[in-house]
Amino acid sequence: MFYIPTSFLENILKEDIPWNDSTTEALGISGVPGKISCFPKKDGFVSGIEIGVRLFKEVGLEVTCIGKDGDFYSAGQTVLEARGTAEKIHSVYKTVQNILEYSSGITNRVRAMTRQIEAAGSKAKVAVTRKHFPGTKTISLNAALLGGAIVHRAGLSESILVFDQHRVFCKDPVAAISVAKKHEPEKKIAVEVDNEEEGFKYIHAGADIIQCERFSPAALKAFVAKARNIRNDVIINAAGGINDTNASEYALTGSNVLVTSWVYFGRPFDIKMKISSD
Amino acid sequence: MFYIPTSFLENILKEDIPWNDSTTEALGISGVPGKISCFPKKDGFVSGIEIGVRLFKEVGLEVTCIGKDGDFYSAGQTVLEARGTAEKIHSVYKTVQNILEYSSGITNRVRAMTRQIEAAGSKAKVAVTRKHFPGTKTISLNAALLGGAIVHRAGLSESILVFDQHRVFCKDPVAAISVAKKHEPEKKIAVEVDNEEEGFKYIHAGADIIQCERFSPAALKAFVAKARNIRNDVIINAAGGINDTNASEYALTGSNVLVTSWVYFGRPFDIKMKISSD
Amino acid sequence: MFYIPTSFLENILKEDIPWNDSTTEALGISGVPGKISCFPKKDGFVSGIEIGVRLFKEVGLEVTCIGKDGDFYSAGQTVLEARGTAEKIHSVYKTVQNILEYSSGITNRVRAMTRQIEAAGSKAKVAVTRKHFPGTKTISLNAALLGGAIVHRAGLSESILVFDQHRVFCKDPVAAISVAKKHEPEKKIAVEVDNEEEGFKYIHAGADIIQCERFSPAALKAFVAKARNIRNDVIINAAGGINDTNASEYALTGSNVLVTSWVYFGRPFDIKMKISSD
Amino acid sequence: MFYIPTSFLENILKEDIPWNDSTTEALGISGVPGKISCFPKKDGFVSGIEIGVRLFKEVGLEVTCIGKDGDFYSAGQTVLEARGTAEKIHSVYKTVQNILEYSSGITNRVRAMTRQIEAAGSKAKVAVTRKHFPGTKTISLNAALLGGAIVHRAGLSESILVFDQHRVFCKDPVAAISVAKKHEPEKKIAVEVDNEEEGFKYIHAGADIIQCERFSPAALKAFVAKARNIRNDVIINAAGGINDTNASEYALTGSNVLVTSWVYFGRPFDIKMKISSD
Amino acid sequence: MFYIPTSFLENILKEDIPWNDSTTEALGISGVPGKISCFPKKDGFVSGIEIGVRLFKEVGLEVTCIGKDGDFYSAGQTVLEARGTAEKIHSVYKTVQNILEYSSGITNRVRAMTRQIEAAGSKAKVAVTRKHFPGTKTISLNAALLGGAIVHRAGLSESILVFDQHRVFCKDPVAAISVAKKHEPEKKIAVEVDNEEEGFKYIHAGADIIQCERFSPAALKAFVAKARNIRNDVIINAAGGINDTNASEYALTGSNVLVTSWVYFGRPFDIKMKISSD
Amino acid sequence: MFYIPTSFLENILKEDIPWNDSTTEALGISGVPGKISCFPKKDGFVSGIEIGVRLFKEVGLEVTCIGKDGDFYSAGQTVLEARGTAEKIHSVYKTVQNILEYSSGITNRVRAMTRQIEAAGSKAKVAVTRKHFPGTKTISLNAALLGGAIVHRAGLSESILVFDQHRVFCKDPVAAISVAKKHEPEKKIAVEVDNEEEGFKYIHAGADIIQCERFSPAALKAFVAKARNIRNDVIINAAGGINDTNASEYALTGSNVLVTSWVYFGRPFDIKMKISSD
Repeated sequence: MFYIPTSFLENILKEDIPWNDSTTEALGISGVPGKISCFPKKDGFVSGIEIGVRLFKEVGLEVTCIGKDGDFYSAGQTVLEARGTAEKIHSVYKTVQNILEYSSGITNRVRAMTRQIEAAGSKAKVAVTRKHFPGTKTISLNAALLGGAIVHRAGLSESILVFDQHRVFCKDPVAAISVAKKHEPEKKIAVEVDNEEEGFKYIHAGADIIQCERFSPAALKAFVAKARNIRNDVIINAAGGINDTNASEYALTGSNVLVTSWVYFGRPFDIKMKISSD
Repeated sequence: MFYIPTSFLENILKEDIPWNDSTTEALGISGVPGKISCFPKKDGFVSGIEIGVRLFKEVGLEVTCIGKDGDFYSAGQTVLEARGTAEKIHSVYKTVQNILEYSSGITNRVRAMTRQIEAAGSKAKVAVTRKHFPGTKTISLNAALLGGAIVHRAGLSESILVFDQHRVFCKDPVAAISVAKKHEPEKKIAVEVDNEEEGFKYIHAGADIIQCERFSPAALKAFVAKARNIRNDVIINAAGGINDTNASEYALTGSNVLVTSWVYFGRPFDIKMKISSD
Repeated sequence: MFYIPTSFLENILKEDIPWNDSTTEALGISGVPGKISCFPKKDGFVSGIEIGVRLFKEVGLEVTCIGKDGDFYSAGQTVLEARGTAEKIHSVYKTVQNILEYSSGITNRVRAMTRQIEAAGSKAKVAVTRKHFPGTKTISLNAALLGGAIVHRAGLSESILVFDQHRVFCKDPVAAISVAKKHEPEKKIAVEVDNEEEGFKYIHAGADIIQCERFSPAALKAFVAKARNIRNDVIINAAGGINDTNASEYALTGSNVLVTSWVYFGRPFDIKMKISSD
Repeated sequence: MFYIPTSFLENILKEDIPWNDSTTEALGISGVPGKISCFPKKDGFVSGIEIGVRLFKEVGLEVTCIGKDGDFYSAGQTVLEARGTAEKIHSVYKTVQNILEYSSGITNRVRAMTRQIEAAGSKAKVAVTRKHFPGTKTISLNAALLGGAIVHRAGLSESILVFDQHRVFCKDPVAAISVAKKHEPEKKIAVEVDNEEEGFKYIHAGADIIQCERFSPAALKAFVAKARNIRNDVIINAAGGINDTNASEYALTGSNVLVTSWVYFGRPFDIKMKISSD
Repeated sequence: MFYIPTSFLENILKEDIPWNDSTTEALGISGVPGKISCFPKKDGFVSGIEIGVRLFKEVGLEVTCIGKDGDFYSAGQTVLEARGTAEKIHSVYKTVQNILEYSSGITNRVRAMTRQIEAAGSKAKVAVTRKHFPGTKTISLNAALLGGAIVHRAGLSESILVFDQHRVFCKDPVAAISVAKKHEPEKKIAVEVDNEEEGFKYIHAGADIIQCERFSPAALKAFVAKARNIRNDVIINAAGGINDTNASEYALTGSNVLVTSWVYFGRPFDIKMKISSD
Repeated sequence: MFYIPTSFLENILKEDIPWNDSTTEALGISGVPGKISCFPKKDGFVSGIEIGVRLFKEVGLEVTCIGKDGDFYSAGQTVLEARGTAEKIHSVYKTVQNILEYSSGITNRVRAMTRQIEAAGSKAKVAVTRKHFPGTKTISLNAALLGGAIVHRAGLSESILVFDQHRVFCKDPVAAISVAKKHEPEKKIAVEVDNEEEGFKYIHAGADIIQCERFSPAALKAFVAKARNIRNDVIINAAGGINDTNASEYALTGSNVLVTSWVYFGRPFDIKMKISSD
C-alpha cells in the first residue's frame, strides 16, 4: 500500500482549479448530467487509477467502473468511469488525465525494462532513483512500484550510498567505508565506483553493494565475475544510462540491480478521457 | 516575478531529506568544509537558479556566485556556487540539481521553439498548457516563462477555453459561444476546433480565439488567411503536436500562438554539481 | 463548481475550536441529542450553504435539510437543518453561522446591484475585485458568483490590467500597451483611465478594455458613446465607488461591466441558528 | 506580541499571486527600480504595519521607513515605505494595501468606541467577539488589540460562556451554572441573559459575569446598580448592537465590558499606496 | 468534543509511512485478508480510541468494534477491532498502537490522581499544563480530558497567569496585578507564589487565583485556611511536583486545583495489537 | 544534519501562542528589555539547542550565546542566551524550554546506555525505534542521534523488518524470507524472533539480521555464539525491554545492536530558563 493523504490530492487539484471553472459556468452547462470514461489510446500499462478514483470522488462524481491499478490494458479498454454533472467532470478531468498519463508513462517504461530482464532469464531488479521531478515523489514512486520496480532510495535518511562527492571529504575513503559499516550495522553499505579497480578496493573494504557507474555491459560482466570471486554475496548495481535500449544487456551481466532514472523522463502515456452527456 | 513561498521549497526538500543524511553521518564527514559549483555539461539555457539560491540558503550554505536565471551558459560556465560544511552541501545538492535540470530542460525546449520562430521572422508566441506533471506547476511555469513562453492557461479559473468535451453538454454549441461572450466580457473566448469549417462557424459566432487542433501547417496557413478575411483581429492558435520539429513551419502559417505541452516532456538538462573540500 | 478543499474548511473550524469546547463540557450536556435549524431573519439571498453542509458533516452531524445555495429565502424559511449531540452542534454552529452571514451579505449586495441593472434593462455585468479581506478569497468569490457576479480578476497571474501605478515605470505608456498586446495575444488588455482623453488614447493604442475610474454617470455615458464610435467592440468598465446607490445609473451608461469592491464591505446578513433539544 | 507565522503570510500572498504577475511582465517593466509609500488618505489610526513590513521583505523589497503599528497618523503621513524593482512592488502592493485597510478599519472602529468611553470617564473595556469573517482571526484580533480592545473570546476552548443555545440542553439551567463553576475553578463563568430577572437568577447561581443582551442603556444602568447590590464584584457585559453610536451611553451604565462584533463590519480605512519610479 | 482535523491525522500517519510499506510488499502478502484486535495487557483506562477509529478508516479498514473512549477496560477486553488486507493493517497498526498507548498512559496517570482525590473526599480538580511534548498538544489534552482533568491553560492567548518571570519586568509587581485585573475583567487573574507571604500580598492585590509552587502539603493547608479568611472565594492551586504519590495529601489541603505536568511523563500504557489472517 | 523546516517550528510555536500573550499585555510589560539564559539544573547532556536558537530568532530575539548541540554541560553552565523585549521572551520561552527538556531527556537516556556499552568494551550500537510519541519524530530522532544512537527505522518505507504480525499472513514464513531477500537486494532483511530455534531457522533462510525479542542476556549470549557459527556476518539485535538497567549486560552478549524504545519514555531533563530585565 502506498499511503497518499487526501490533503496531497487536494493540493494537486487546487493548483488546477483554484476557485471556479470559468468555462463551464460561462457556457451555462454546469448542472447537465454526464459520464466520463478513461481508456488508453494504445495497448499498455495504466497506473494512477486509485488516485484517479479518489479525485473523482473528491468532487462528488460517482465512480462506476475501476480497473486494477498498474495492469495491462488494451487500447480502448476502460480503466475508469464515472458519472455526474458537467461541472464536476470538468473540475477534475484534466488533473486525473495528467496523473494517469504521467504515472502510466513511468509504469510503462519500467515494464519495458522488466520485460527485457525477464526475457533474458535474469532475476535482476529495476530500482528507481531520487532523480524524479521535485514535487512528484508520491506519484513517481507509486508508478514505479506498480510497474514492478523497487525503490533504490526514496531519500537521504534511509540508506548509505557513498558517492565520489562524499569521498572528496574523506582523508581515507576506503577506511571510511568500514567506519560507516560499523556505524550502521542494520544497513547495507553501497559504494558507487567508476572502474573495476575502485570496485575491488571497496569490496575488500567491506562494501555490501558496489554500484558500477557507466560500465559497459562487457566491462560490467567481467567485473561481476571477479567481484563474486572475491566475495560471493556482494550485490552489484548497474547505474548510469540504463534504459530500455540496454536493459537486457545489463541484465545478462549478472548484476543484481539495474538502477535507473530514465523511467522518469519521456512522454506521458496517452489516456483518452471520453466525456459524454447522459 | 514568480512568487514561490518558502514553505513550498521546504516541502520539496523535506521529501528528499525527511530526517537526517545517513551517509554523511556514517562517514563521519559532517563538519568538513567544502564548496559546491554548478555548471551545465553542454551549452544551453539554465533556469531554476533563484530557487537553487534559496535552497542553498535554507540549509545555511553561503552562496558565493549567482548567474542570471534563464540565461544562456557555455558548458562549464558556473551558474551557482556555494560554500559550507559537507553535511549542508549533501543535504541539498541533489534537490538543487534536480530542480536546475528539470527546469532547464523545459527552458531549453521552449527556447528551441522560440528561436525557430524568431528565425522564421514570426512574432508568434509559444504558450504552455496545464499538461505538466501534477505537482510541478510552480517549477514548470517558471521555467517556461524564463524561456520566453507565455502561460496559455494556468488553471480553470482564469480563462474561457471551449473544447469538444464542453460542447457535448450544449444543446446549441454555437449559440453557447455568444452566451459565454456576454457572460465574460473581460475575457477572450477561445474555441478549439478540429477543422476549418468548425473554425469559420465559431468565428462567426464571435469567438476571439480559434485554437486549431492538429491542423497540418498547410491547412493552418490556408485557414489563417481565410479567418482573417472574416475578422481581421481573430487570434489563431496552433495546438496539438507542436514541438521543435515543426515550430518554424507553424510559425510561418501566420498563427498568433503555438500552444504546446511538449516542452514539459523529455530529458532534464545535465547540470554538473562539482563538490570539493575546501 | 467552486472547488473548496476539506483542509481549508478544517483550518477555518480549527481556528474557532482549537481543542475542546469548554462550555458544553462544563455544563455536562455534551451527549444530549438536539437539532439545529438555520434560516434568515428577513427575506434575502442565502449563500455558503454548501460550505455549511460540509462543516456540519465534518463534525458528525446528520444533515436533514439543505436549501439551494444562493437562492432567495423568505424570513424564517429553513436553509439548512441538522441533528446530533449538543457537543457536535456547538462545536460548529458559530462557524457555520459566520460563514452563512458573511457569504450572504456579499451575495445580497451583489444581487442589490444586479437587480437594479436588470430593472434598467441593461446587460452589464457586476464584476468583483481582489479587494476582499485577505484570507477570504474562497468564501468571498464563491458568494459573489452565487449572486450572479463575475470575477473581475482573482489575482495577478491571470489577466492584464494596467494601472497608473504601472505607467509610472513606463517610458512610453501608450507604446507599452501594444507591447503588452503582442506579448499576451490570448488575453484582453485592460487599461484604467481617469478621464476621457486618456481613454481615447488607449483605445487608439489597442486596449481591449477601458476601465473608467470614478467617472460620473453622465461623463461615462458620453465617453461610452464616443468610445464605441472609435472602436465598436471596446469593452467599457465602470469602476470606483460603484454600489447599490448608483448601479442603475451606471448600468444606463452603456458600459459593459460594473467593477465593484463595495460588495465585500458592510454587514453580514443575519441568519438565525435555532438550536433545540430533541 | 501577536504571533503570526510566516507561512500564514505566504498563504495570503500566494492567493493573490499564485504564479507570476502577468501585467508587469507584459509591459516589460519588471526590473525598473521604484519606491512605494503608504499613507492614510485622512487622519486616523493605521494598523497591520508590521504585517506589511514582513510582506514587503518576503518579496525582497528594502523597507526604508516603518511607522509604529496602531498609532494615529495624519492624512498623508507616511506609515511605511520601501524600495525595489517594479515587479517586487507590484507583486505585493495590493495585498499589503488590503491588509492595512481592513486592519485599520477595525482599529479605527475600536478607537471610535474607546475614545467615547474614555470621554465618558468610564473604565469599561471594549471586547471583540468571534464574529469576524472566518479566516481573518489573525488580522482581525491583531487589529482590535492594536486599537485598545481586549479579546472577548478567541474560540471555544478558552472560556465558559453560557448562551440560551446551551440552556435548551439543560434540565435545570440554573443548577448547571454551579456544575460548570465547580468544573472550571480557574475560569470565570459568564452567562448571557435577555432580561433583568434572568440576570438576577444567574448572579444568585454564582455566575461571575452577566452578559446583558440587547438591554437598553437605561435598563442596563438599572440592572448594574441592582446587580452590584447583590454581589459587588459581578462583572456586567453589555452586548448586542453596541457600536460607535451608543458606546458612551453604554459606558455610562457602569457595565465593565462592552462586547462588540460591530468593529468587524464596515468599510476598510483608505490607505494610499503611492508608487513611483526611482 | 475535541476537534481533530483529518489533516492532523494524515500528517501523523505520513511520518510513519511516507511512501509504501516495504516489508509487506517484499513478503508478497499485501492482499491477504486479516483482522486486527486491540486490547490492554492489564486493567486500565484506554483513550485515543476515536483517533484510532479514524486512522483505521483512513486506510480503508472496516472497523467492526469500537469501545467507549476513555473507559476502564479489563486486561484482554477488546477496545477496537477492524478487518481488511494485510497491507492496510500494517500501514497503520503501529501508529494506532502508539497513539492508544501514549494517550492511555496520560489518561491512566490522570485517573490515578483523580481517584485519590475522590477517595479523599475532595472536590479538587486535576488541571494539566502546557508542559507536554511539543507537537502533542492535541493527543495529550484529549487524553487528559478523557481522564477527567481540566486544562490549566492550553496556551498563552487564553488566560492570565503571572510568574516570577513576569515580575522581573515590573517596577511594582503588586500594583501590576490590579492593572491586569482592570485590563481583563472577563478573566481570573492567577499569580504563582513561592511562599505564604507572597500569597497574602497578591490576595490583597486582588488576585483571583493563588498558585502555590512547591508548598508542602502542611504549608499549603495552613495557607489555604488563612487565605480563605482574607477572601473566601480565592482559588488556591497546588503546583510543582504534584503526582500520584501525593495527590491525596494535596487534595486534603483544601486547595481547589492540583496543577500537574507529571501526567505527561512516564511510560505508555501497553496495548496489544493482535493481528491474524482471516 | 537533521533537516527541520521552519514551518514545523512555526506550527509548534503557534500551538502555544495562537494569537497574543494575554499575561504580558495585561501587565503592561511588553516592551521592557530583558535577557533569557538557559542552563541545566544538574550535570547532563543538552540537546535541542539548534531548534531553540531558531525559535528565539523566529520571534526576533537576538541570540547572544549558543552551546554545542548535544554536548555535556555542568549544572548552571549556559547553553543558550538571548536578549530582547519581555513580550518576545515570553512568547517563546516555554516552548523552547519544553523542547530542550524533552530532547535532552532522550539524549541523556541514550547516553546512559552508550556509556555503559563503551564501559563494557562493546562496539554495539543503540538504535531507536518508531515507538516515540506520534508527532514528535523530528525532535525525538534528532535527540537520539545527538546522543550517539542510530535510527533503527524511521518508518515503514525504508527497511525490511519481519515480525510475527507479518508471518501470520504467510503460508510459509521461512520461504517468504528468501522471497523478500530477492525482492530487495539493496536492503538487509531483518527478522524478529522469540527464541533460539526460530533464530536458527531464519539465519538458514538467509536473514541478514536476527532481532531477538526479550531474550535474557544469558540466552542471547548463547545464541550469538551459535548464530555466528552458522554465519559469521549475521547481525544480532537485542530488543524488548532494553534500557539503562541492562544495557551493559546486553552489550556483553556480543550482539551488534541494542534496539530500544525506552529512551522515549520518562521525565524531561530540567532546564532552568532564567529571565531578567536588562
